[in-house]
Amino acid sequence: MEPAGTVLTPQALLDHWQGHRRLTRRVIEAFPEDKLFTFSIGTMRPFADMVKEFLQMTEPIARGVATGVWTPYAPDLAGVKTKPDLLRLWDETTDALNAIFPTIPAHRFAELDKAFGQWEHSGINTILYGIDNEIHHRGQAYAYLRALGLEPPPFWER
Amino acid sequence: MEPAGTVLTPQALLDHWQGHRRLTRRVIEAFPEDKLFTFSIGTMRPFADMVKEFLQMTEPIARGVATGVWTPYAPDLAGVKTKPDLLRLWDETTDALNAIFPTIPAHRFAELDKAFGQWEHSGINTILYGIDNEIHHRGQAYAYLRALGLEPPPFWER
Repeated sequence: MEPAGTVLTPQALLDHWQGHRRLTRRVIEAFPEDKLFTFSIGTMRPFADMVKEFLQMTEPIARGVATGVWTPYAPDLAGVKTKPDLLRLWDETTDALNAIFPTIPAHRFAELDKAFGQWEHSGINTILYGIDNEIHHRGQAYAYLRALGLEPPPFWER
Repeated sequence: MEPAGTVLTPQALLDHWQGHRRLTRRVIEAFPEDKLFTFSIGTMRPFADMVKEFLQMTEPIARGVATGVWTPYAPDLAGVKTKPDLLRLWDETTDALNAIFPTIPAHRFAELDKAFGQWEHSGINTILYGIDNEIHHRGQAYAYLRALGLEPPPFWER
């Protein structure tokens, strides 16, 4: 039985987040390695650069909402130039998110905080922004794959 | 004071949904009218067709989660061939969503139901699927605009 007024539990939110991250992992895998790091449309970034942005947001957002301490993503991403390296970091963030998320105190979802010292939002809105940013740019990656004549993984599979 | 365990209130979810819908409206406006109905990349649909899908999902999802009755979107979209017509329907759905959403009984967010008689999910997951589907395809529309040499509206403005 959920408390009255609850539309989403912490566990359902974590499942939702990791479900999207599993889909993003399949989109990374769907790219030929060279295209992952070089292909783009218009003035947009290659998908690998978007993926690096997701990595820079996911674990730091979870930790920031959990603790109020906003620290940048630790690994140096400039030297990451292969799909296996990107996937290894992806999987490390998956584990980190599973470890950190359950430590978020209940009151932190509604509490306002300056994410990364800059963007004042409730914890839930900072988390949703991170998820939505990943969906948004992954949608662009679907366009990249289609432009390359490749079939992206089904959007509804998580 | 939120109930313990609440990560998102119904009002915050509605605000989040309508914020995304305001951004989608700006993306519709950013397209030259002919490109809105004709331009695409690879085998993807023109953005107008994706927008019609959003219309077919948004109000019916809100009503279905509110009532358990899954009825298709009523207006005939086949004849919609102009940007003003699309925006008028968009704004009608905005009003409908504002009217229907507050009538969703609290227990329906967690309750499983077969959306449109087909997809069994909790109410919250059906709603999130609708929002995420819009973010996903709108991300593709950003790629269309960039391919056309046009600047899309900022993703973070809602």
